[in-house]
Amino acid sequence: MAAKKELRIGLIGTGFMGRTHSNGYNRVPNFFPDLEYTPVLKVVCSRNAEKVKAFAEQWGYESTETDWKAVIARDDVDAIDICTPNDSHAEIAIAAAKAGKMILCEKPLARTVAEAQEMVDAANEAGVNTTVWYNYRRIPAVSLAKQIVDSGKLGKIFHYRANFLQDWTISADVPQGGTGTWRMDVDAAGSGVTGDLLAHCIDTAMWINGAITDVSAVTETFVKERMHAITGKVQPVGIDDACIFHCHFANGSLGLFESTRYARGHKALYTFEINGEHASIRWDLHDLNRLEYFDHRDEGIVRGWRSVHVTDGDQPYMDKWWVPGLGIGYEHSFVHQVADFLKSLETGQPCSPNFQDSLETQKVCEAVLDSATSKSWKDTGVESFTM
Amino acid sequence: MAAKKELRIGLIGTGFMGRTHSNGYNRVPNFFPDLEYTPVLKVVCSRNAEKVKAFAEQWGYESTETDWKAVIARDDVDAIDICTPNDSHAEIAIAAAKAGKMILCEKPLARTVAEAQEMVDAANEAGVNTTVWYNYRRIPAVSLAKQIVDSGKLGKIFHYRANFLQDWTISADVPQGGTGTWRMDVDAAGSGVTGDLLAHCIDTAMWINGAITDVSAVTETFVKERMHAITGKVQPVGIDDACIFHCHFANGSLGLFESTRYARGHKALYTFEINGEHASIRWDLHDLNRLEYFDHRDEGIVRGWRSVHVTDGDQPYMDKWWVPGLGIGYEHSFVHQVADFLKSLETGQPCSPNFQDSLETQKVCEAVLDSATSKSWKDTGVESFTM
Amino acid sequence: MAAKKELRIGLIGTGFMGRTHSNGYNRVPNFFPDLEYTPVLKVVCSRNAEKVKAFAEQWGYESTETDWKAVIARDDVDAIDICTPNDSHAEIAIAAAKAGKMILCEKPLARTVAEAQEMVDAANEAGVNTTVWYNYRRIPAVSLAKQIVDSGKLGKIFHYRANFLQDWTISADVPQGGTGTWRMDVDAAGSGVTGDLLAHCIDTAMWINGAITDVSAVTETFVKERMHAITGKVQPVGIDDACIFHCHFANGSLGLFESTRYARGHKALYTFEINGEHASIRWDLHDLNRLEYFDHRDEGIVRGWRSVHVTDGDQPYMDKWWVPGLGIGYEHSFVHQVADFLKSLETGQPCSPNFQDSLETQKVCEAVLDSATSKSWKDTGVESFTM
Amino acid sequence: MAAKKELRIGLIGTGFMGRTHSNGYNRVPNFFPDLEYTPVLKVVCSRNAEKVKAFAEQWGYESTETDWKAVIARDDVDAIDICTPNDSHAEIAIAAAKAGKMILCEKPLARTVAEAQEMVDAANEAGVNTTVWYNYRRIPAVSLAKQIVDSGKLGKIFHYRANFLQDWTISADVPQGGTGTWRMDVDAAGSGVTGDLLAHCIDTAMWINGAITDVSAVTETFVKERMHAITGKVQPVGIDDACIFHCHFANGSLGLFESTRYARGHKALYTFEINGEHASIRWDLHDLNRLEYFDHRDEGIVRGWRSVHVTDGDQPYMDKWWVPGLGIGYEHSFVHQVADFLKSLETGQPCSPNFQDSLETQKVCEAVLDSATSKSWKDTGVESFTM
Repeated sequence: MAAKKELRIGLIGTGFMGRTHSNGYNRVPNFFPDLEYTPVLKVVCSRNAEKVKAFAEQWGYESTETDWKAVIARDDVDAIDICTPNDSHAEIAIAAAKAGKMILCEKPLARTVAEAQEMVDAANEAGVNTTVWYNYRRIPAVSLAKQIVDSGKLGKIFHYRANFLQDWTISADVPQGGTGTWRMDVDAAGSGVTGDLLAHCIDTAMWINGAITDVSAVTETFVKERMHAITGKVQPVGIDDACIFHCHFANGSLGLFESTRYARGHKALYTFEINGEHASIRWDLHDLNRLEYFDHRDEGIVRGWRSVHVTDGDQPYMDKWWVPGLGIGYEHSFVHQVADFLKSLETGQPCSPNFQDSLETQKVCEAVLDSATSKSWKDTGVESFTM
Repeated sequence: MAAKKELRIGLIGTGFMGRTHSNGYNRVPNFFPDLEYTPVLKVVCSRNAEKVKAFAEQWGYESTETDWKAVIARDDVDAIDICTPNDSHAEIAIAAAKAGKMILCEKPLARTVAEAQEMVDAANEAGVNTTVWYNYRRIPAVSLAKQIVDSGKLGKIFHYRANFLQDWTISADVPQGGTGTWRMDVDAAGSGVTGDLLAHCIDTAMWINGAITDVSAVTETFVKERMHAITGKVQPVGIDDACIFHCHFANGSLGLFESTRYARGHKALYTFEINGEHASIRWDLHDLNRLEYFDHRDEGIVRGWRSVHVTDGDQPYMDKWWVPGLGIGYEHSFVHQVADFLKSLETGQPCSPNFQDSLETQKVCEAVLDSATSKSWKDTGVESFTM
Repeated sequence: MAAKKELRIGLIGTGFMGRTHSNGYNRVPNFFPDLEYTPVLKVVCSRNAEKVKAFAEQWGYESTETDWKAVIARDDVDAIDICTPNDSHAEIAIAAAKAGKMILCEKPLARTVAEAQEMVDAANEAGVNTTVWYNYRRIPAVSLAKQIVDSGKLGKIFHYRANFLQDWTISADVPQGGTGTWRMDVDAAGSGVTGDLLAHCIDTAMWINGAITDVSAVTETFVKERMHAITGKVQPVGIDDACIFHCHFANGSLGLFESTRYARGHKALYTFEINGEHASIRWDLHDLNRLEYFDHRDEGIVRGWRSVHVTDGDQPYMDKWWVPGLGIGYEHSFVHQVADFLKSLETGQPCSPNFQDSLETQKVCEAVLDSATSKSWKDTGVESFTM
Repeated sequence: MAAKKELRIGLIGTGFMGRTHSNGYNRVPNFFPDLEYTPVLKVVCSRNAEKVKAFAEQWGYESTETDWKAVIARDDVDAIDICTPNDSHAEIAIAAAKAGKMILCEKPLARTVAEAQEMVDAANEAGVNTTVWYNYRRIPAVSLAKQIVDSGKLGKIFHYRANFLQDWTISADVPQGGTGTWRMDVDAAGSGVTGDLLAHCIDTAMWINGAITDVSAVTETFVKERMHAITGKVQPVGIDDACIFHCHFANGSLGLFESTRYARGHKALYTFEINGEHASIRWDLHDLNRLEYFDHRDEGIVRGWRSVHVTDGDQPYMDKWWVPGLGIGYEHSFVHQVADFLKSLETGQPCSPNFQDSLETQKVCEAVLDSATSKSWKDTGVESFTM
């Protein structure tokens, strides 16, 4: 077997996403042995020297840094993986691009369209490969949904609806800011559920169903003040706790999206449903190995929603794993994204969603927030999307 | 056993709803033997003399008429049951009120707020008992949802969402107007899914969760022209095929409603979900004997959505039927409404929803349609509701 | 419309089954208007004169008796409906047959094969029409299962399995004997779950999948002594609280049956599943409007169990009821059996299951109990069955 | 951080189970960083020199062998992992024990009780640590089921039932013997579904509910002859295609087990349900992150089966993975078994199921097969089990 080409990774950030990405890099060689490229965990970076060393030992990084600029400066790193809070994505990405590094950036791309646009411009100027970790696309059942829609089985699409429901911030005692709760702090996160959760729904939706052209939204902040974890002060909450919007797609279908962190009983209930002329599809992250499919062309007396257990070798990615009936989990979506990124280095094709795609998602998010503020419909200005 | 007091019914209209109401009247004596009142099927009215006679024989009406005014003129009728298309509700109801008859009117109350207001005024002036057949409230699982929310188990409510999804008009060959398809004709129906389906969702929602104060909506007509069943001409379609709106409730919760007749795979999928601080509830018309309930106060390791099979004697209405585990159906909601109307004659309390309640529902419907047309938020002006 | 021929009913027994049958007779004219025959509720019989009068008033019987022999002696009765506890089925049925009456007997046909054989002989000698109320066959989803198997869609059958799980007798405080709990008394009931619940499963199974040839069973009585509701004495419990058996069908498939009243969480969970070479079916009484269907010939990537909502007009019996998506309930199975019995009077064909069919079911039940006692396989001796 | 102690693994066999075990060893350091021991992939063995080298490269083994005896002879190996077909388990394990190696043996332990007993004796004599890969125990929802039963929540247990349904051998074209289909060859496998699938069900059952004392079984071989993949000859099929048995547990509960490879529509449907006096539990491998729980002590009107999504940090193993709502997969059960085995080296406690436990499971399997052959009840002779 020929020696693999290396993709030398510099990971910045060691939180939840630092773990999921690291696991992705580690699993790929076991399950995608035919790839030309293999990831090498060159360096991981976090401010706390002791913690970053423990992280490196646990996940197999060769070295550590405590300053992200040092990572970018290293010659032995090909790609920068950005897992920091949203407020540093732009700065790091732009620096990485200028240094000629490939970039794998955690979603959302940025806090604002303006930031995102700068990142796109920097990446384009540098001509570096990029991808953004909208990982849910690469859950096999979701990839299968895309494949089914692309095949034309649904016919003309009438409706697309998606929810992302959580319940972890109902207590007024949850703080904002700090390490584990920066998503509650508008300065760090840029927005609440819109950038954190709806961004996923929008990415999946535009990937499968094309551009969202205009939106009408409402947001709500149920708990108005929370203590800041760093300052200890009770401060106004700037994020959206809940966001609902309806919209038009360029193909004429109606869209409906809702996200909240106040839906008691739902931990991470990302669901979507697509209704077409001939057939429909729905999916639910809590039962991620299943895709439900309805086909009106089935014989009437035995027609019904099919519960498809997406664990067969002819379904997306599943030839890499076990045998029919044996499910995989959340983490595998990151393994798939690593594999697809490595593959894109072989083929020279972009690994969607790249920065440009995710800028479009950002435009929808910003139009949603603008619509909620202005209580009016907003055009998104979305121009292109790698479907 | 003392002789029952009689409620002598005059039914106008012999379509689908004529059948469900007639079944309601016929079943009540068998299952609610303790009521003071019993319905007597005095007369049924429809334009076709032969067909109305067959209907009378099938359902046990004592006599027939072919002119609704003759029904109202009869001395041996206490209550008028209106099952005609929406465009005649107001005229019949106002005439009935003037004649001092009680009125049981099929929903929606009217095509417009203006019509509905006239009906309320007429009923108030005459001082007659009224009810509107928003029957889904009286499915035991839905009544139980109301009881649970009223008990305070959910705590503060954050979210209310409801869908009513159908797929029967996707084919462009479905006509508008005529006997079976008057719901497709805006003149006869007043609107499309908004008055037909969302009106149900709104009635349930305000009954359980209080007034809806303002709305932002979008509607769509996917098939722009259809043949008229009477004229045979291809005409523009005036109804809304689909309608989505988000809203605020007076209690501060966010609402989200969607209805369409273009959701392939769903025959009559009325669902709702309510998320509160401590607990949540959801329900689905396709499995109408079940209520799902989540309570965060359950012990963590065994906490989950409970699938409650609403067939026990301590659950609403179920002591009247069979034994635990043995479900009832759609039609029973009408039996319950008849029983509750008869009971209201005993107690002197209104049988909600009465005309006033249903006027409020009409206001929401009209605000929804106005919002969609104007692409802006609209206040509903809802003032009161019998919760 | 021509006057209907009358089937004049004499009902003996006013318990739970007396109610379900009475409802069946009352509903048929409304929903099956095209039948030549119509039931007439001539007389109802129960020992308590006051209670039977109240029952007659509630359900519309023209008269009452307190001695079942008086019912059989009446000239104005065509058919005897037996709803008494199992220990009187044989005596009443034989007397009815001798009087030339048709017989509609509640299941199980009898306590023993010997009793059942006498009943069959009496009915054959008298040449009277008979039927036994194995009502679950006539739930539309179950009838559809039969239709699908008969159509050959499943191919060769490998497996048939059925459960009937309840939990109402777990408390040691439930008495045996008496009005509401005669099913706990072996003298009145003949057996426990075998005759009460498994008899239903066996009837459905042989109707769909043919004769059961031999069985191997185990039974258990978890609570060994219970108070007798009439004598007040604590007595040994003679019934089987639980029964499991596996078996062979004549067609070579394996069967597996289980019933218990000690399955906490299940009120009346009758389920069955049939696995064939090409397709499989499963059904569940708690969601009785659904049939699940899997067809291996579906395209692989979208293959899965279909959840068929059996509420369309082309599915069994459903053209008589409402519109697609609107479910019916448990009680409707009895309406269907009445309708089918009336139809059998028109056509001259037997209304399966008749006494002969139910004798075969009795043979399986008895072989099951014998097998459990002797701890050995038993042949059933089943000879024929109207499939 | 102190250097880890090493557990140097020699893996024999590179099929499906060779992959799952290798993945288990590779994942443990990332997700269980606090263990004292770490696995080192010293050597992998398979007959084909080229293929075993590729496997070693893919999974990170340091070296390869083509003769299993060479692996056992190596000084740099602490533990032998046996992933070969069942017919070589005994020989390899006994040799490994004699060489003083720890043994991790794929299930079933052996083809017969006699073989298994020799393995136990050899391990006991050598005093080596053993474990058998009955991995399903260590799916978090299954471990939680065990925890719930042990806590007493269910009260007295009445029923335990388990199914393991597959459909992959329905086609008569599936061969027996050879690399991918040795499970179809009775010489290699020892039995069909009994040793392959029911052994899992029995292991879980006895772990949770204690000893099975006696059994009554039936088996079936639907396809009587199949081509042998190695010889190319059509030969009689010696394995059981399907097996059903009922049984008693030592605690007085009734058991019911079924397995088949002819249940069209089920890929790997391992399910179990336990009914106790107060509460019940059920689980399904196709939705492995969920445990259903019913508690009769819940308030009546909101009582129902709870669908518990087992993804919270206070549920077994889940603090090692992601955040609530994000499921894991089949493969994780092997990671957990590796972690538990490593932990057992720290604590000196056995890692259940060890050889002795799995001998008891073997006794039940053999009694089941004997019962089917003799058509009579058989005592299992099970003496002890690490619950």
